[in-house]
Amino acid sequence: MNVGVFGLGSMGYGMAISLLRAGHSVWGFDTVATQVDKFVSEGGFSDDIAAAVPDLDVVVIVVLNAAQTESVLFGNNGIAAYMKSASTVISCATVAPVFARCMAAQCKASELFYLDAPISGGAIKAAAGKLSVMASGEPAAFSGARMALDAIAETVFELGDEAGAGSAMKAVNQLLAGVHIAAMAEAMTFGIAQGIEADVIVDVISKCAGTSWMFENRAPHVVVGDYTPRSSVDIWPKDLGIVLAIAKDSKLSAPLTSAALQQFVAASDAGLGGEDDAAVTKIYAQNANINLPGVQ
Amino acid sequence: MNVGVFGLGSMGYGMAISLLRAGHSVWGFDTVATQVDKFVSEGGFSDDIAAAVPDLDVVVIVVLNAAQTESVLFGNNGIAAYMKSASTVISCATVAPVFARCMAAQCKASELFYLDAPISGGAIKAAAGKLSVMASGEPAAFSGARMALDAIAETVFELGDEAGAGSAMKAVNQLLAGVHIAAMAEAMTFGIAQGIEADVIVDVISKCAGTSWMFENRAPHVVVGDYTPRSSVDIWPKDLGIVLAIAKDSKLSAPLTSAALQQFVAASDAGLGGEDDAAVTKIYAQNANINLPGVQ
Repeated sequence: MNVGVFGLGSMGYGMAISLLRAGHSVWGFDTVATQVDKFVSEGGFSDDIAAAVPDLDVVVIVVLNAAQTESVLFGNNGIAAYMKSASTVISCATVAPVFARCMAAQCKASELFYLDAPISGGAIKAAAGKLSVMASGEPAAFSGARMALDAIAETVFELGDEAGAGSAMKAVNQLLAGVHIAAMAEAMTFGIAQGIEADVIVDVISKCAGTSWMFENRAPHVVVGDYTPRSSVDIWPKDLGIVLAIAKDSKLSAPLTSAALQQFVAASDAGLGGEDDAAVTKIYAQNANINLPGVQ
Repeated sequence: MNVGVFGLGSMGYGMAISLLRAGHSVWGFDTVATQVDKFVSEGGFSDDIAAAVPDLDVVVIVVLNAAQTESVLFGNNGIAAYMKSASTVISCATVAPVFARCMAAQCKASELFYLDAPISGGAIKAAAGKLSVMASGEPAAFSGARMALDAIAETVFELGDEAGAGSAMKAVNQLLAGVHIAAMAEAMTFGIAQGIEADVIVDVISKCAGTSWMFENRAPHVVVGDYTPRSSVDIWPKDLGIVLAIAKDSKLSAPLTSAALQQFVAASDAGLGGEDDAAVTKIYAQNANINLPGVQ
């Protein structure tokens, strides 16, 4: 099968490699030429859009947000105009459900199938072909996407035949994940302020009712003072912003999401946007005049 | 060994039974006579304080809060005056670290050992003798408490030789647990408002990065609409209030804890204080005009 991957960042690159490993012919596209060159050196193809896209059976779009997704599909030199009839778009960015429904309708008008398919799992699982995909779309979109999904995902949650449900579920996950990271930061700073060693907090909480997936994944970064970005602070103003926009449209108050968003915005404003998202802990520590391990 | 258990609520009763099962002679005390009678019918002893307490080697205090703990020890007919020299107090209520240090000092003045020993795990683990205990105190307090701890706990976190550290760690756990319950409520309502079935949200999130111990434990109550209290709403205004009081003393801002507290206070004000703490979801649903499963 011929697959195009648009966006060779940490997630997209791993997904493209997983597609290669599964035996597909994969074309990689990115504005960063070094990422494309690296992908070609690993067996991928590169070509310009007009030459490559008409032969693709499936296109995977793994860009930052809704604006980039729309631009890839329908912007200047957008690929929808080049894609062959009845080929399939797998859209992976975290976007609002209403945007996903709009893209699906526009794809339908261009005789393309659209799978609303946000992903979860991080770069390591992307490279291993073991992502979780929260997918919704018409049956033909699932059929067209199936072989590509088999290559990139360990688990595909099938959330119905309407685009938007996948994005709604991703928003639920991001709400929880973002709040849990900020809660981790609040709890670690609170515990350190009471004189408990950071590693002791992690040891105890991991075995107690206060634990979360994010606590166990991110709190160790605080313990060793390593803020190398696995997933960066700047993801969260974007994703929690999407959550709050959806919540507002539903007239739903979301006070914890709102409080967490403020902490990530403060971290970003303080110049920490490119650091690991556990660096939101530094905002708490600064406010309380507390020293974190490995941070001056 | 002769053990007294003060407070035969859902936690204390289970702990008393676990102590009996381990072969100790156990005296149970509670203001609710039916709880004491039930305990006696299972092999426990009952007697008045003046008669029973002088023979006890260890006293476990499992009451609601600091005020009740102080009252049991040093109030009118307080047991400290009856306890034999060098016997041990195991104090399990969630209290501020400063209160734990104060109790330890008063016990020392009465020639008693004091173990600051908040518990985690719920009624089922209490009855099985499998609680987690976050303990701190002088070595003699640990020695005196050891056999009782063996009977009630699966895990004892030893957090140093000063009372207060155990309570500080419990506060860290309650901060996270309370925020995670409110986040569960926020996320469930958000997802249901987007048209996702409640059971689908739980199935998907449990396998994704947004999960938490509390999400997996409490969200199923929302799915089936069962708000029978395993742990009630009214625990949280108390425990998160303790967390915020400690945070304020440390000049630490805790915006997520504060937001979560407001939701539990609203739930309590709405007459839901005695329901399961998952009922905080009803406040979100009410605000957004959304129907939860099994709720009119």
